[in-house]
Amino acid sequence: MMHQPITITSAEIIDIRVPTSDQRLGSDPFHKQPDYSSAVLHLETNAGLRGVSVVFTVGAGTDWICHGIRDLCQLIVGTSLDDFATAPIKLYRRLIDHHQLRWLHDGVFRMASGAIVNAMFDLWAKSVDKPLWKLLIDLEPEFVADCIDWRNISDVLTREEAIAILQERQSSLQQRESEMSTRGPKAYCTAGWLGLSDDEILATIRKLQAHGFDSFKLKVGRDSEEDVQRIRFMRDAIGSECKLMVDANQYWGLADAKRHIERYRPFGLTWIEEPIARDDVLGYIELAAAFADADFGFACGEQAASPVIFKQLLQSRAIQYCQIDAVRVAGVNDVMAIVLMAAKYGVPVCPHGGGIALCNMIQHYGLWDQIAVAGHSDTQLVEYIDFLQEAVEHPVEVHNGCYATPTAPGWGLEFVPDFIQRHRFPDGDVWRTRDATRKGAAFEVPDETSHD
Amino acid sequence: MMHQPITITSAEIIDIRVPTSDQRLGSDPFHKQPDYSSAVLHLETNAGLRGVSVVFTVGAGTDWICHGIRDLCQLIVGTSLDDFATAPIKLYRRLIDHHQLRWLHDGVFRMASGAIVNAMFDLWAKSVDKPLWKLLIDLEPEFVADCIDWRNISDVLTREEAIAILQERQSSLQQRESEMSTRGPKAYCTAGWLGLSDDEILATIRKLQAHGFDSFKLKVGRDSEEDVQRIRFMRDAIGSECKLMVDANQYWGLADAKRHIERYRPFGLTWIEEPIARDDVLGYIELAAAFADADFGFACGEQAASPVIFKQLLQSRAIQYCQIDAVRVAGVNDVMAIVLMAAKYGVPVCPHGGGIALCNMIQHYGLWDQIAVAGHSDTQLVEYIDFLQEAVEHPVEVHNGCYATPTAPGWGLEFVPDFIQRHRFPDGDVWRTRDATRKGAAFEVPDETSHD
Repeated sequence: MMHQPITITSAEIIDIRVPTSDQRLGSDPFHKQPDYSSAVLHLETNAGLRGVSVVFTVGAGTDWICHGIRDLCQLIVGTSLDDFATAPIKLYRRLIDHHQLRWLHDGVFRMASGAIVNAMFDLWAKSVDKPLWKLLIDLEPEFVADCIDWRNISDVLTREEAIAILQERQSSLQQRESEMSTRGPKAYCTAGWLGLSDDEILATIRKLQAHGFDSFKLKVGRDSEEDVQRIRFMRDAIGSECKLMVDANQYWGLADAKRHIERYRPFGLTWIEEPIARDDVLGYIELAAAFADADFGFACGEQAASPVIFKQLLQSRAIQYCQIDAVRVAGVNDVMAIVLMAAKYGVPVCPHGGGIALCNMIQHYGLWDQIAVAGHSDTQLVEYIDFLQEAVEHPVEVHNGCYATPTAPGWGLEFVPDFIQRHRFPDGDVWRTRDATRKGAAFEVPDETSHD
Repeated sequence: MMHQPITITSAEIIDIRVPTSDQRLGSDPFHKQPDYSSAVLHLETNAGLRGVSVVFTVGAGTDWICHGIRDLCQLIVGTSLDDFATAPIKLYRRLIDHHQLRWLHDGVFRMASGAIVNAMFDLWAKSVDKPLWKLLIDLEPEFVADCIDWRNISDVLTREEAIAILQERQSSLQQRESEMSTRGPKAYCTAGWLGLSDDEILATIRKLQAHGFDSFKLKVGRDSEEDVQRIRFMRDAIGSECKLMVDANQYWGLADAKRHIERYRPFGLTWIEEPIARDDVLGYIELAAAFADADFGFACGEQAASPVIFKQLLQSRAIQYCQIDAVRVAGVNDVMAIVLMAAKYGVPVCPHGGGIALCNMIQHYGLWDQIAVAGHSDTQLVEYIDFLQEAVEHPVEVHNGCYATPTAPGWGLEFVPDFIQRHRFPDGDVWRTRDATRKGAAFEVPDETSHD
């Protein structure tokens, strides 16, 4: 019987935005009124399977990503899944090393490239009826190594070292998979959003504790005095046994960061997240040295634009927690490289979640890491935020403070059709009647930035 | 008499592409068949003045930048030039710190933001009938400092240090301006493009020497043996007194870079340009240490995505030549910060030129640096490439190996209307009849990448 190859027949790119700024959800000192949004990619095939991926954004700019994905889809429509699955690095290179597009650098270009790569992995996993994490753990070590672009990272992790790490886990793979099929990666959650009152924070903590959470995060940055009070409040509320992290979202310069963080020493914090600019490797090295004797470590990565930035943060031991994002770099191939580098240095992979559907994606990376790369669950925390799970047909589940291991094939990123219809930008019901000043770059908020 | 404020009334964004790949002009190991292109921004006003800026690209992706600029123009149409010229940092922050768009990171977003900033500076300079360089050198030191976003760089250069550097130059400003009005920044040129035969390289050198050039660059990267032969050939052709530089366009990983560069020691090279990835600060530090005793230094910056990357390369003394680009970062404000940081560390500013109209822009930065910041012309070389000067109404001129100081108001970036008409993508005469495979992301070239 002839094997009919699965071929990409068309692509649809959809700009969806949710007016989350109505409730000031997810705000931080820089992202004052985010509207959680996604550039959604649907790759249709001749086999009835659909490859899905998303790029999360915070409102304006989603159309920039959609524009890029639309252009890149020229490279994928008409190709076969077999060609991709035989050697995913080939598509990765066609995108990232495109002889003209590479001039566009990271940011929009790398994120759009990741959308293509991730949708193809989704399709591949669906074609073999596996959730993405299961597809990944079943790959041979050499195959994983062949997915990675070694050019700019092999001074820190060689192909051979990566294979050795993966091979070392092979003997415990089945046992770890079995353990994690009943209890997925341990989760943590932000309870201390900017703008919430103490009472609201306390209520959030109690609700999370009732669901088994014992690790909580707090947004800081603007006002040192208020931040310290709030850290103390949260520490008192959760007790000394629970983990507490703070997140500054890059709000400080290096001197400000040192000054603020110096006051955080007494509170038994686990990590300080994004104290300074996402690309300031030497700044992170200096912070790590200045606070080498503190309880806490430093965490970053959700906005690190390339594996090269992660490489430097890891090789220098400047960060103690590696916060991969699912859609900031160029998809599965880049994330594989980053998770393997973190494993070499024994740095826990603590993925960035939230937004729209990021948690749906990162749970797969958490599982791959904890089964097949780090091979344990002793140190990792995977971010969980319960926003907008009504958007997707396979919502993330958390039981007893841990992700429930997903079973749907692929990423499990299928959106509820009605949700897409209502939130399409700018013509969905949610947006058609809104004020024009809420649309695109024109949506500004008053400038209140000043260093305290 | 009433002063009628100059107001931006409309914006036009034009995608122009030149099929330079027909002649393989400007190719390097990564950018195999570049089509030199520009996202051109025209800001029209109620005063008949037009603010112009360009973002150079190499073909596909120009539409990505145009899309971004078009979105950002919502922030500028309807505003007044006075508002901008009073405090340029305000517009810079509205763009770069936009509470939703900043999620897009560097790359397309920062380049598009730079287009807006640069067009406003163009308009400002035209409104006072000065070339851009003259506008810049006439700014008070405090005003320059107020143009800069200090958040992420003040650990390396403070506002006060920047003002002190600029103030120190004030006493020699008039003399330097007078000296440079007759003889602009010293130029250098690439003679050794990949794909040129030895005879063609020799002919290029002789032609350049006839125009007073004594500093030449050669593209390297792919084949170590061939590269060394070509370096030797060029050194023999130009003699020991002339400067010779090589450019690897980020083709190597760190280990490859060391191996290749080790063979370059005997040739009295001035610099090795972009040996490794644009964001690998620790890699540059390691290279600088490994070759501390060599004649040559390291150069990079044309693809450094933010002032923070420049900060680290300069503070660590990893680069000995600072290659600012006119359109990679967010316009004049970012470049001011970078040039001032370079001045603090005594690193010569050697801007990246070529493409379409980059030389027309960088000559202004070279003049500002050499008159008002470094205050001398002893160590800087400003790249010059004579491509496509027929595109602009004020072509760059070079006499005796030096730029002729421009006198046209603003950047002098006015395009010849017929050039724009013919090269508009995809509907200009040059493109309408071309093969669809030459269009956008679909324009691929066979993959020949392999490490030699």
